[in-house]
Amino acid sequence: MTAPQRDKLPAGEAGTTPLVSRQPGQATTVVSAGSVQFGAEKVVVIGGPCAVENTDQITSIARQVATAGGSMLRGGAWKPRTSPYAFQGLGRDGLALLAQARQASGLPFVTEVLDPRDVMAVAEVADMLQIGSRSVQNFPLLREVGASGKPVLLKRGMMPTIDEWLNAAEYIMAAGGSDVVFCERGIRTFETALRNTLDLGAIAVLRERTHLPVIVDPSHAAGSRRYVTTLARAAVAAGADGLLVETHNDPGNALSDADQSLTPEEFAELTTSCRAIARAIGRDL
Amino acid sequence: MTAPQRDKLPAGEAGTTPLVSRQPGQATTVVSAGSVQFGAEKVVVIGGPCAVENTDQITSIARQVATAGGSMLRGGAWKPRTSPYAFQGLGRDGLALLAQARQASGLPFVTEVLDPRDVMAVAEVADMLQIGSRSVQNFPLLREVGASGKPVLLKRGMMPTIDEWLNAAEYIMAAGGSDVVFCERGIRTFETALRNTLDLGAIAVLRERTHLPVIVDPSHAAGSRRYVTTLARAAVAAGADGLLVETHNDPGNALSDADQSLTPEEFAELTTSCRAIARAIGRDL
Amino acid sequence: MTAPQRDKLPAGEAGTTPLVSRQPGQATTVVSAGSVQFGAEKVVVIGGPCAVENTDQITSIARQVATAGGSMLRGGAWKPRTSPYAFQGLGRDGLALLAQARQASGLPFVTEVLDPRDVMAVAEVADMLQIGSRSVQNFPLLREVGASGKPVLLKRGMMPTIDEWLNAAEYIMAAGGSDVVFCERGIRTFETALRNTLDLGAIAVLRERTHLPVIVDPSHAAGSRRYVTTLARAAVAAGADGLLVETHNDPGNALSDADQSLTPEEFAELTTSCRAIARAIGRDL
Amino acid sequence: MTAPQRDKLPAGEAGTTPLVSRQPGQATTVVSAGSVQFGAEKVVVIGGPCAVENTDQITSIARQVATAGGSMLRGGAWKPRTSPYAFQGLGRDGLALLAQARQASGLPFVTEVLDPRDVMAVAEVADMLQIGSRSVQNFPLLREVGASGKPVLLKRGMMPTIDEWLNAAEYIMAAGGSDVVFCERGIRTFETALRNTLDLGAIAVLRERTHLPVIVDPSHAAGSRRYVTTLARAAVAAGADGLLVETHNDPGNALSDADQSLTPEEFAELTTSCRAIARAIGRDL
Repeated sequence: MTAPQRDKLPAGEAGTTPLVSRQPGQATTVVSAGSVQFGAEKVVVIGGPCAVENTDQITSIARQVATAGGSMLRGGAWKPRTSPYAFQGLGRDGLALLAQARQASGLPFVTEVLDPRDVMAVAEVADMLQIGSRSVQNFPLLREVGASGKPVLLKRGMMPTIDEWLNAAEYIMAAGGSDVVFCERGIRTFETALRNTLDLGAIAVLRERTHLPVIVDPSHAAGSRRYVTTLARAAVAAGADGLLVETHNDPGNALSDADQSLTPEEFAELTTSCRAIARAIGRDL
Repeated sequence: MTAPQRDKLPAGEAGTTPLVSRQPGQATTVVSAGSVQFGAEKVVVIGGPCAVENTDQITSIARQVATAGGSMLRGGAWKPRTSPYAFQGLGRDGLALLAQARQASGLPFVTEVLDPRDVMAVAEVADMLQIGSRSVQNFPLLREVGASGKPVLLKRGMMPTIDEWLNAAEYIMAAGGSDVVFCERGIRTFETALRNTLDLGAIAVLRERTHLPVIVDPSHAAGSRRYVTTLARAAVAAGADGLLVETHNDPGNALSDADQSLTPEEFAELTTSCRAIARAIGRDL
Repeated sequence: MTAPQRDKLPAGEAGTTPLVSRQPGQATTVVSAGSVQFGAEKVVVIGGPCAVENTDQITSIARQVATAGGSMLRGGAWKPRTSPYAFQGLGRDGLALLAQARQASGLPFVTEVLDPRDVMAVAEVADMLQIGSRSVQNFPLLREVGASGKPVLLKRGMMPTIDEWLNAAEYIMAAGGSDVVFCERGIRTFETALRNTLDLGAIAVLRERTHLPVIVDPSHAAGSRRYVTTLARAAVAAGADGLLVETHNDPGNALSDADQSLTPEEFAELTTSCRAIARAIGRDL
Repeated sequence: MTAPQRDKLPAGEAGTTPLVSRQPGQATTVVSAGSVQFGAEKVVVIGGPCAVENTDQITSIARQVATAGGSMLRGGAWKPRTSPYAFQGLGRDGLALLAQARQASGLPFVTEVLDPRDVMAVAEVADMLQIGSRSVQNFPLLREVGASGKPVLLKRGMMPTIDEWLNAAEYIMAAGGSDVVFCERGIRTFETALRNTLDLGAIAVLRERTHLPVIVDPSHAAGSRRYVTTLARAAVAAGADGLLVETHNDPGNALSDADQSLTPEEFAELTTSCRAIARAIGRDL
């Protein structure tokens, strides 16, 4: 995966319609990742831990996610942490464990990539690449994942305006990527009762401005498991094409994001109550 | 309505449990305003124009709100406007028109009061007093509406933290008010695609911290009618006890908030789709 | 001080140039309050406690402010507090103590008014009326202080945009006030290391857009006395026409804002170091 | 410049005092970059264009910066742009032009690096590496510049709290870097009159919490040349160890940031007026 173009202008052209833009009358693009389809009738539920910790943990959680109605697994191999001394993830070893969990559960998986030098290795194994909230304007990384040809889950991050977020997707598409899914996860505001302020209005704006699907991560916005299900329900009612939910087989001992990870039982309840809402608005889950 | 206590400490005492706080196991307090109950099974829909303009306008809208399933009328007699040269409302004349519209439609009404010197006049006519977003820390006004004994709709405003908002309600209760309904309407953040960022996580936090009902105003957060229904659906799914929605019989010619007011048809569609969501979570509308 | 106009449009007219606007080539308006001039060569330093507590306290502080080079006294008789159970100020008794301190120190004083019903009483005694940060969009109050004819110190508050702040001054001037001084005191942002984020760029913007003077309150932005002098120096260098600084004879026992009040010695050091900066930019203090 | 450690924990240890922390009584660390010293008595002024465009442009500007009292050159070879279709910089060719301009002017230069794969190439030529505002939590990049051993100019970005910013520097130091200079450049808030809100209180907080120098970029906060000098003066008065100022020989035709670049004459006036302030607080410039 050389990136000979990274010192040059992308292939796209200024003045032409952006690749991410929804044309009048255009339907939402369905993005496939393994067996999962984003943007179709069915709301996708992605579950899994913040970080991959060991074989038993990730395999056990993957099976619980599948049982509870989830259709995709998430788990971090590389974890962007505020402190350099916090657990940074298992790296490439984590990728292998995710592949095992996929085998065991039948669920495709999405995982975050942080470093352009790791993109090829992740793209060879993962079903979908995640661009995390701190990387949404990491332009070399966006180009690299675009060039990989894999579907990309593009988180918003704490600061970008919707316009900047759309442009981040345009970087991916200008580099050759065609399958981008937006993921709103809360923005940084003055309010600190929740970790971040979930901006569900962004779903309505994205619907107008892009043909690409949009999902919601209620876990990072909440920062506490007590608030996750409320936000998940609201996201489905607002028309989200999917949910990205942190769940752990033993949240009390999780190596990261312990406070906001649901237990398997809570995760199952979330999918049940969100399914009822999805059906009330003419979708399913 | 003298306010002899306004130079003194309120009756409540530091160190005791705040009056707004939810005790362990305490149910949500049902607040009644005319025939309407906030905090019961049924989600309340309040509709009406930003400002009362004339008899025909407010009466016509009130009937449309009733027909579409709304159970309460809103309309501004005094309008807080950024510019001193913008339309400021009809004042006391507007109150009389609201009373006529109540008579014609059978709907009780809520209206904003801006000035402590107007509280008594409004309390004599209105079914519920609204504290607007710019007045949430107008402490003399909060005490006056608390002393009036009328139910109060307390908007959050663009800036207050949830903690400051709870304290605003405590001012009302410390002055003798017992019936306060919180109304989330979007906070001010860096994002400008919508007018404000609706903070639906606040519903989950308020449920823990107060026994009082909470409703949502999707119109002011949206700033555009295209986004109102999406936010309304999300609010009901998040567990809001009601909605406060701007609607107008002729939005294109409204004297204020023209862009965000729904037509009668849009308002009827909103109530229908929100009813389905309410039923999906075990409530009604 | 009746306010018969408060249900009607102000005297000003939409479409004409706002009264606050700086015309091309127009000099900064010098606003006088007692013996003090805002907007002239000399940078004004206002010192005093958050709240008036008793005769000895306010008189002692007033003398210390005068000795240290301050030219005006501040002190709150009515204090807007987040909790209804916190100390709310001495009210009208506090006004009398401020008048005594003026007599003892020779310094004119500015004090906040919260309630339109108190404006006349305050205007009879105070040299300048302060509109606090929570009242910047309390339109009935703005009209009342405008009608009083007294000079007004208009704080920005935590949320208003510069445009909203200018319109708040326009409310005062449309009601007949001519002497408004803006006071930047920090806005609410995501950063919590200081209480608020001081927006000194606002000084540059106001210089373009209004002919009225602008001063800075470094104390409320800082929230801690350790940061006050740094912000005060920066404000003077940015061209502020004055400083509003909390100082107390015994900060450790202050009834409010104890953490951010300077000792008399710190206050004297602040004026000395700010004077050097004022002279470096061709002014004095 | 291999980065074998990038899948593993950094060398530092949780629980020990962070490397960035100021110990009691510790003096500010002087960071040298070429002939320039950050954190000494003299306030450093860095000038130059947003982007390197061609030989004449960068050489001409470098000489003007030197003549006007600047002591270091800035210029972007890789430009992080919101849109993939905007000018992205000359890349490695730009580095060679910067080296020519250094030769012609005698000024060392700082330039931004965006991609971990470019760090070695930049480190071989530049006197100081800049981490831009969008990269402050790009952890692989922070580790790579730390491992390079070059001095690093670490911009804050629009979103990080001061605590996150300190941790970003800790990533650099944990990877072996010892010479980090912080650069405040404005945070993202609701206020849009200026591009960003310059947080000068951050200087006071960093003084307490770290032994490393801190400078200020007034240009990106201002977004317009009309406001740059006001912010620069305030920064020097607040104790900044340096300024990073955009200047261009022909701002009207600059390929990026045209609006906020000073002309050579404006840049010279800025250094003169800031020197007077520096001397007023016992420093020089």
